Amino acid sequence: MNSITVHFLPSDKQVKAAPGDILVDVAMDAGIHINAACGGEGACGKCRILLKSGEVETKNNGKLTHQEFEKGYRLACKSTIIGDITVEIPETAKLDQSILKSSPDQNDLHDGRRVVPREIDKLITEADYNPALKKYNVTIDPPTLDDNTSDLSRLLRALKQQHNLESISIDFLLLKKISHILRNANWNVTVTLVQTRMESQLSEHQLHGSRRPKMISVEPGDTTGKHYSIVLDIGTTTLWGQLIDLNTKKSLAEASEYNPQVTFGDDVITRIVFSQKKDGLEKLQQVVIKSLNKIINELVSSSDIEREHISHITAAGNTVMTHLLLGLDPKFIRETPYTPVANFFPPIRAIRIGLELSDYVYLYTFPSVASYVGGDIVSGVLSSGIYKDSRLTLYIDIGTNGEIVVGNSEWLMTASCSAGPAFEGGGLKYGMRATTGAIERFHIDRKTLEPMIRTIGNVIPKGICGSGAIIILAEFLRTGVIDQSGKFNCSCTTHRIRPCSEGHEYVLAYKEDTKAEEDIVITEADIDNLIRAKAAMFAGYQCLLNKVGLTFQDLERVIIAGAFGNFIDLKEAIVIGLLPEIPTDRYHFIGNGSLLGAKLISLSNELLDDGEKIARKMTNVELSEDHSFMDKYMAALFLPHTDSTIFPETTRAVMEHDNFC
Amino acid sequence: MNSITVHFLPSDKQVKAAPGDILVDVAMDAGIHINAACGGEGACGKCRILLKSGEVETKNNGKLTHQEFEKGYRLACKSTIIGDITVEIPETAKLDQSILKSSPDQNDLHDGRRVVPREIDKLITEADYNPALKKYNVTIDPPTLDDNTSDLSRLLRALKQQHNLESISIDFLLLKKISHILRNANWNVTVTLVQTRMESQLSEHQLHGSRRPKMISVEPGDTTGKHYSIVLDIGTTTLWGQLIDLNTKKSLAEASEYNPQVTFGDDVITRIVFSQKKDGLEKLQQVVIKSLNKIINELVSSSDIEREHISHITAAGNTVMTHLLLGLDPKFIRETPYTPVANFFPPIRAIRIGLELSDYVYLYTFPSVASYVGGDIVSGVLSSGIYKDSRLTLYIDIGTNGEIVVGNSEWLMTASCSAGPAFEGGGLKYGMRATTGAIERFHIDRKTLEPMIRTIGNVIPKGICGSGAIIILAEFLRTGVIDQSGKFNCSCTTHRIRPCSEGHEYVLAYKEDTKAEEDIVITEADIDNLIRAKAAMFAGYQCLLNKVGLTFQDLERVIIAGAFGNFIDLKEAIVIGLLPEIPTDRYHFIGNGSLLGAKLISLSNELLDDGEKIARKMTNVELSEDHSFMDKYMAALFLPHTDSTIFPETTRAVMEHDNFC
Repeated sequence: MNSITVHFLPSDKQVKAAPGDILVDVAMDAGIHINAACGGEGACGKCRILLKSGEVETKNNGKLTHQEFEKGYRLACKSTIIGDITVEIPETAKLDQSILKSSPDQNDLHDGRRVVPREIDKLITEADYNPALKKYNVTIDPPTLDDNTSDLSRLLRALKQQHNLESISIDFLLLKKISHILRNANWNVTVTLVQTRMESQLSEHQLHGSRRPKMISVEPGDTTGKHYSIVLDIGTTTLWGQLIDLNTKKSLAEASEYNPQVTFGDDVITRIVFSQKKDGLEKLQQVVIKSLNKIINELVSSSDIEREHISHITAAGNTVMTHLLLGLDPKFIRETPYTPVANFFPPIRAIRIGLELSDYVYLYTFPSVASYVGGDIVSGVLSSGIYKDSRLTLYIDIGTNGEIVVGNSEWLMTASCSAGPAFEGGGLKYGMRATTGAIERFHIDRKTLEPMIRTIGNVIPKGICGSGAIIILAEFLRTGVIDQSGKFNCSCTTHRIRPCSEGHEYVLAYKEDTKAEEDIVITEADIDNLIRAKAAMFAGYQCLLNKVGLTFQDLERVIIAGAFGNFIDLKEAIVIGLLPEIPTDRYHFIGNGSLLGAKLISLSNELLDDGEKIARKMTNVELSEDHSFMDKYMAALFLPHTDSTIFPETTRAVMEHDNFC
Repeated sequence: MNSITVHFLPSDKQVKAAPGDILVDVAMDAGIHINAACGGEGACGKCRILLKSGEVETKNNGKLTHQEFEKGYRLACKSTIIGDITVEIPETAKLDQSILKSSPDQNDLHDGRRVVPREIDKLITEADYNPALKKYNVTIDPPTLDDNTSDLSRLLRALKQQHNLESISIDFLLLKKISHILRNANWNVTVTLVQTRMESQLSEHQLHGSRRPKMISVEPGDTTGKHYSIVLDIGTTTLWGQLIDLNTKKSLAEASEYNPQVTFGDDVITRIVFSQKKDGLEKLQQVVIKSLNKIINELVSSSDIEREHISHITAAGNTVMTHLLLGLDPKFIRETPYTPVANFFPPIRAIRIGLELSDYVYLYTFPSVASYVGGDIVSGVLSSGIYKDSRLTLYIDIGTNGEIVVGNSEWLMTASCSAGPAFEGGGLKYGMRATTGAIERFHIDRKTLEPMIRTIGNVIPKGICGSGAIIILAEFLRTGVIDQSGKFNCSCTTHRIRPCSEGHEYVLAYKEDTKAEEDIVITEADIDNLIRAKAAMFAGYQCLLNKVGLTFQDLERVIIAGAFGNFIDLKEAIVIGLLPEIPTDRYHFIGNGSLLGAKLISLSNELLDDGEKIARKMTNVELSEDHSFMDKYMAALFLPHTDSTIFPETTRAVMEHDNFC
């Protein structure tokens, strides 16, 4: 890693890069501005640089003539680092060479920001690997007059003799089919057994040691190699799904969709309100199921598997999402004293709620802790492992419903705060999910206040994702484009800042660079949403720590989860006050912890038990009932914070910056 | 009992009678013929007798003038015994006074024939009384901000605190409703818990000790007093149902219907054949479910209960009936080596197969032993208690599929033989079920060969029930109307015997006495069916006893079950060779043992366990594979039997009789 040197001229700055890095990103990280207006698609041709030594891999240089290419010109957004190079930024591309102050641990930050995917096989030890669903190939003695016991009996007898399995029950729908399956398969079949708590075995109050396997599928021949589960994260704004190979523990495919319930309300409260209308609950359930089926279809079609080899599905979601998924009435979650129907949900047949899977597939839903602390956070705590680690850890799931856990292997406290959908791209005029076309890197030229943007997928920009919004906000703050209350500095002399119906806005990309109908902008209303979201999260951490008499400095680890966490720039998140200013090496990223937990319990009965233990162990703090929360929230409506002593370094850095306006 | 003396003149015969006996029955039992043509309805007025001393209770003497009544004339069919009497049979009524030889234990026989209903509370001890379904009234703390755990949690907590119940799971459909039920009920509800093995807890191979209660219903207020179950006997020809009060152990109502599957085949084999046609299995399932719903509706409407207070349903049926009920394909039951899909069936939601009960009601089906030894016999063995009795017992269930068990508390062997529906009134030209209008008593005048008949309900005859057919056959044999091979004696000089398309027939009632379109007859084909049925049963007992080296004389008890067994005349059944000639005090009647067993398991979890143990314990003998069965069957196609040494007394009595023809 980082073994390649990139030498920028004329600034004479040398930085380390990794093979495969894109040159425009390396420059951006180094604080070297290259004019890049088309998001990295190579369409505008403005980011041309001159190779002085070494070579890059370049895919598309349509905007360069053969002569220019021969002279060494390359498009920075299309150049992949393969070895040491020296590049010169020509005047046309180089609008500014001022170098941002880089903190001494920038590379750590850089690594921190990048998601280091936690490999499932590192989380699941050999001892843990014990999927709730297993397949067994078995050969059955055909019946004779001397041995004509029932088909079911002889199948069970064979499982006992060949695999030492007993006390097996059978799904009724399967029972209707086995006689023909056994004969058509010439008495050699593969049996799928599930060993998780089924509907009738769940208990709200305590765990029960004994699990009895249930036979849910019998297939002809040996299909033990084809065995899959689907894991889901039911987010308020985004739905995620993965297809897991239960033999190899690998995720074979991933898919996501916006949660279509957003049409009926941005957050859980508005959706509960909608659920109380005529057929509201049914409608909310139906639309989310429809999108989950879309995800399942995509997972199946994008991997070369057959749907009937999927034999399990696990899901994690917050309490309201879980209620809506299962069709449970969330009415009393919204009304004081905020009681859900249940925190532990019986597994149910997936087809019963309309999921397009085989009739024998059961859906296991993660248990919740309270009305606003749901199965997604339980799943996240499971996947982060903090419940078995002695270090004091703050676990943050930044989503529409922000969830926070503090504790260690001894105790766990949890709270939730309604951050709103801003960090998922919701509530922003040009907000979008972190998919192709979302602006995720951003830099402002200190002189001209012109932007340098790069999008996910290096295509023409379509909008702003949550992580991009954080970077934009931090860059605005640093350059004085906005003040600490989030208002545009109108003394800035740039055509990019202009009045709009919501105060002022900054043009990130003019429509001619977007092929869109309109300019892509970020407005003061957008910035307000972002500030309120980060303030709610920050006040949440503070309250929870205060409850147990701790401060940020006591934290040994901070784990950031959430699909959004995948893309977050740690330093920038601290700059805007979304994350506390503590040594960055204490930060860890887990990605979508909720989805990861759903995957873990697919692969391990022991971890499934752990999930239920965690749900019972966590103490919930109702922030809405904590009077200090509102004070803390108000104090956090500032960039980075009204109390500069909490963000000493950040505040100093922001203040030290020249105001470029 | 029998403390009243009835003195018949002019024969000067004195017999004992019980208060409430009908005079015509007492005469019939005593072998005194009274002309009774209208079946006991009082319509023909032919059975008039003259009271010489004492009094009878008489309901309808429309056929007698005031003067005749004053003189002491009464209709024997309408006279109830209330005290000692002396009656004279006038010439008009008395057609014959010849007295049948009465065996010394006639009164025992008489009592034996009468059904002494086994009261459920004599079978279920206090220790046994432990219904799978129980109701608990509980008051729940309403939620507060300090205590806002889920509705389900607080309900479970209250059950723990107030009834010491724990580890309770919940039905998913119920979970969807509880929040509103709890609030509407102002936090006082009655919970129904089921503690039987549910779908996922059943195992084919072994019993599992631990049962965990599952909550299936929550009702507002205290409804603990209203708690019912339905028990069903799914016979090949007849369906029986009872409504059980789970608090008092009483049967509140009983209803029955012909099994409408008879349209598709008289016996299990023809129904299996039909099930293999297109949609055949679905059709068979649908029609039986339709009739069961009719029974359920009748049970509910005839007792003053609400359907939603029925929370359980248990059923016993033979293996094929159970397969068809549950929609399991019986194809391989018919094909050698005769394997059913399963012998143990998972409980399923009753609504899943279309039974019109609440969605939370589970149907528990008795386990089978083999393809032709079903849950009905397991249920019967349970209700008879032979599995806990050291005495060697023969258990006989006389039905379309005759089932036989021999054994004691140490061992149990079983076999089945296809007797056909004759004893249930099927396969007879004027056969009918043992309901109002069925001829159940029959006597032939030794001189004129004129019949004396009485019907169930004392109404004009409509047909012949199985028990009536046995009596008719025995009386035919005794009077020489038929020979020992079942053919009419054409030398008899009576207009009652006449040729027909099926050989000859005997007119039981001319159409003018029936208000029917035709005379009611019994044909040689009917008699053939009856002989083949009894021969199959008898050969079955012999084979099973031979297998273990025993004879009829070793039997300490014979228990007769089957709805039909309710009405059977023991002595007459021995006369025709349906039952072995052993001392009659060894015979016991249990009624519909299958239905009784279904009732027992409704009231006792321990007996439910016993039922499953019995199914595992019984050894099945395939009579169709026993070569000696056919020989024994052929030998039994004679009245009472070709081997007169097996029926010494009976044969002698038959032979001794004058041939009246």
